[in-house]
Amino acid sequence: MTTKPKVVPARRSERARSAILAATAELVFEVPYGRLSIEAIAARAGVGKQTIYRWWPTKGALLFDALLELSGGPDGVALPDTGDLRADLGQFLRATVAEMAEPRFDAFLRALMIEIQSDADLAEVYRDRLLAPQREAIRERLRVAALSGGIRADADLEVAVDLLVGPVQTRWALGLGGLNEGYADSLLDLVLAAVRPH
Amino acid sequence: MTTKPKVVPARRSERARSAILAATAELVFEVPYGRLSIEAIAARAGVGKQTIYRWWPTKGALLFDALLELSGGPDGVALPDTGDLRADLGQFLRATVAEMAEPRFDAFLRALMIEIQSDADLAEVYRDRLLAPQREAIRERLRVAALSGGIRADADLEVAVDLLVGPVQTRWALGLGGLNEGYADSLLDLVLAAVRPH
Repeated sequence: MTTKPKVVPARRSERARSAILAATAELVFEVPYGRLSIEAIAARAGVGKQTIYRWWPTKGALLFDALLELSGGPDGVALPDTGDLRADLGQFLRATVAEMAEPRFDAFLRALMIEIQSDADLAEVYRDRLLAPQREAIRERLRVAALSGGIRADADLEVAVDLLVGPVQTRWALGLGGLNEGYADSLLDLVLAAVRPH
Repeated sequence: MTTKPKVVPARRSERARSAILAATAELVFEVPYGRLSIEAIAARAGVGKQTIYRWWPTKGALLFDALLELSGGPDGVALPDTGDLRADLGQFLRATVAEMAEPRFDAFLRALMIEIQSDADLAEVYRDRLLAPQREAIRERLRVAALSGGIRADADLEVAVDLLVGPVQTRWALGLGGLNEGYADSLLDLVLAAVRPH
């Protein structure tokens, strides 16, 4: 007979959930994603496979929640607004480049790239919960700049967001290399030239 | 006893190779890539699994050769040079957008995106044999424009190539939508503003 204190079920659930997300984060980094199994995650987390399937229907859904946990969720995506557009966008681009060079983040994003190519539902969740807030934060910073005349009033801000994020995303996804602070600064030079008043 | 004519072995090999590449092209479009097996390709092509493995070490390597076959190989990637930079780049961007909207091409490229996220060797072959010639063709067209003063002499052409291909690639890879001729033209407006002389 043991004398373990009673564990409130909700608290036990929360503990299991945290253990599963932590195990996922570890294993995404350790195991090629194609060979990463729910069984392995369950074993590492010390839970049964069914516990995982009760909360996450697919490996991709679990991956996404683990990424949200890792990235601190969709909050805090606002861009700085010091009044200096070049400084603010430069800080954003250098941070993006640094993040993508971080091996754990890289492993996560590559796994997510694999999943969203074949899982349209997950792709939609990713767009709605992570990409859309990020893109809106950039667009909002550009909108403020347009109001004060730092950007042409007729510049297409949706395409301007693409100019800021697309080149870095593409170099990373296709493994083209060269993603460093110098690249971030060269990219910023061209993007600012594209949107500034004639 | 049959009276079949003798088939020259080299010709039989070539026929098997074509059948395998054609079967791959069909099945990539019909079956989610994660569930597409070499067995299924062998069955469709009417060859043994070992025949496929003799020529292609992995599903990814086979996928890449089937894509090369589909896209007509790395030849013909030169950009038009009519002397009108806007017209030439516009034609390239509209063709790119149209290609990515083509369901068969889309299925192939998504399968390749999946493979290159986890197979560094295949990613390198893809970069060397398809991406590098494409990027060089764009860079060359920009270089010619820079010589005649249509582009600032100090513009970073490597980053300018990224501005042209990155936004489209990213919208496609992340499923952000909106890839049509109007988008191609808006993107071109901003990219030309980025690189033209002050």
